[in-house]
Amino acid sequence: MLDKNRLNRVIEGMKEQKLKQMLVSSAASIFYLTGKWIDCGERMIALYINVDGTTKMFINELFPINEDLGVELKWHSDVDNPVDDILTVVDKNEALGVDKNWPCHFLISLMEKSAAKSYVNGSHILDRVRMIKDENEKNLMRKASKLNDQAIDKVIKFLSMDKSEKTVASEVGNIFADMGTQGNSFSPIIGYGPNGADPHHECDGSLPKSGDTVIIDMGCRNEYYCSDMTRTVFLGEPTEEGKKVYNLVLEANKAGIAAVKPGARFCDVDKATRDVIEKAGYGKYFTHRTGHSIGIEVHDFGDVSSANTEVLRPGMIFSVEPGIYLSGNLGVRIEDLVMVTEDGCEVLNAYPKDMIILK
Amino acid sequence: MLDKNRLNRVIEGMKEQKLKQMLVSSAASIFYLTGKWIDCGERMIALYINVDGTTKMFINELFPINEDLGVELKWHSDVDNPVDDILTVVDKNEALGVDKNWPCHFLISLMEKSAAKSYVNGSHILDRVRMIKDENEKNLMRKASKLNDQAIDKVIKFLSMDKSEKTVASEVGNIFADMGTQGNSFSPIIGYGPNGADPHHECDGSLPKSGDTVIIDMGCRNEYYCSDMTRTVFLGEPTEEGKKVYNLVLEANKAGIAAVKPGARFCDVDKATRDVIEKAGYGKYFTHRTGHSIGIEVHDFGDVSSANTEVLRPGMIFSVEPGIYLSGNLGVRIEDLVMVTEDGCEVLNAYPKDMIILK
Repeated sequence: MLDKNRLNRVIEGMKEQKLKQMLVSSAASIFYLTGKWIDCGERMIALYINVDGTTKMFINELFPINEDLGVELKWHSDVDNPVDDILTVVDKNEALGVDKNWPCHFLISLMEKSAAKSYVNGSHILDRVRMIKDENEKNLMRKASKLNDQAIDKVIKFLSMDKSEKTVASEVGNIFADMGTQGNSFSPIIGYGPNGADPHHECDGSLPKSGDTVIIDMGCRNEYYCSDMTRTVFLGEPTEEGKKVYNLVLEANKAGIAAVKPGARFCDVDKATRDVIEKAGYGKYFTHRTGHSIGIEVHDFGDVSSANTEVLRPGMIFSVEPGIYLSGNLGVRIEDLVMVTEDGCEVLNAYPKDMIILK
Repeated sequence: MLDKNRLNRVIEGMKEQKLKQMLVSSAASIFYLTGKWIDCGERMIALYINVDGTTKMFINELFPINEDLGVELKWHSDVDNPVDDILTVVDKNEALGVDKNWPCHFLISLMEKSAAKSYVNGSHILDRVRMIKDENEKNLMRKASKLNDQAIDKVIKFLSMDKSEKTVASEVGNIFADMGTQGNSFSPIIGYGPNGADPHHECDGSLPKSGDTVIIDMGCRNEYYCSDMTRTVFLGEPTEEGKKVYNLVLEANKAGIAAVKPGARFCDVDKATRDVIEKAGYGKYFTHRTGHSIGIEVHDFGDVSSANTEVLRPGMIFSVEPGIYLSGNLGVRIEDLVMVTEDGCEVLNAYPKDMIILK
């Protein structure tokens, strides 16, 4: 059912941006506003919002809705051109906001039919509203992370020298299924030793070698909200360098979390983690941003990066996940989700971070 | 490595459309041209192609490539704006083709910087090239479907009255993993009785009732090529209506396949299946198009629908998947992949279609 409070926050955002009308098309944003998850794949779905409070949703009849969403629905079939329906509501003399990830053929089609005066990225408005979680969302995020804490414990106990990355990754999915969640929030990353040195390594049939780091980056979706956590453990006695790198990343993770409070900026959190690693001479091996916002999507809007000068506000939730990647050797990443509170932050993950060496 | 034959076919297509330049951004199309699968998620990747043969790829440094792709690479980091790199190669005085599914914020960003004279959907060019599979692709498609035939046999044997849709769906993934494929090509659909009447039902904890239809819609990705097949079986003795509907859908499936030959049109195949179902008075319960093209993507360009008047040519591969959905009661769908040959078609699925009643 259309959440009037959330819709009003979006309309306030539109007014601030002097945008009179927009189309919301992402499944996550439509879920956020209506409480209904509708995944239409390649087919078009769009929720039109006018600052005067008018809403209308354009949806393919293959995705029947048997409840009142509090939004007028206009159905189309696979043989209709749904862009024509949109033309009936859009004010041609005003700019039109569209979702950042809308497949651009829909936008090109609207442009070819001169649907609006101009076209702007309207996502920032919804992104900013969604960045500040309400009480209900905070509880759902706590719950998803608690489930992730429980699941990673099972995964770590499942590890052994004879199990490939793929086998472990597949077990992650099974564990989340058995727990009654909606499954992985992203394809879990299991990376042994050198494979872990590639932060986007695709799990394969590799087996671990003794002393290998094992990166475990996993999360579930539960009641549509995502968790995401990384732990790195050792299978067998680590090298001295392995231990040193582990402790450094842990220190960076803690320094990042310590920097999270209202008034600080995303880039300050990034700097806090990066400084620890740079001072130890490993700066160039920390090859990615410190983190990302998370909520209904595993990557919500708002990077924890040096480029993001936005100020932190209570209700924001994001990851703090520094890492060091030594090509051909090892990778270590330690990631927690944190929620900005009135006077600091709440860490949503409770799974221990002290070095674990499995024998 | 850049496939010169495929690139030349794309350039020929650009010339036919009088398009001088385009950006290819879909992972599938980049894989098709370079042989390298690069999934950058929300980050930008784009392959610029000029009709003069110039190519240049813009890619985030988080996705390192350690081989020569035969394409000049321009790297950006998370703190750069990669659109600025694109401006350096685009001819401002010409139209620019962009991929249909490119997230439209990139396009809006290019428009704000007046990157080109105009912007068009350039995907049709690549889509049309990719529609006609070459010999290598035909073999990969045969292989993926053969694996799917083997897998569905295991799934049907796994069915029992005490297993939920979710449990069976999860087993599909395990079977594909055990077979060494890249996993599901889409989330498998397992639908018992009334759940099967919703063609996009999301698997849940439902258990079957005796006599239920079980829709099993599944496919794997193997060496980056997709399979997709549906069988419907009965768990326990079917009702008379269940049998009647099954035989009707089977007849429609066979009629559709019989209509596949060079010179026929996609809409003729749709009509062939639909006529069978309509003549029996079930027309309104066949609520979707007859099928879709398939290849590197499970939904490649080219619907088998009443609206698609394109003529079939050898090398095209698509699904023929009529269905009848009786709300609150049962659903039946039977789907095979077919490849257009010089004088008819080759059916890529060999799994039997005679009625199966599990006791």
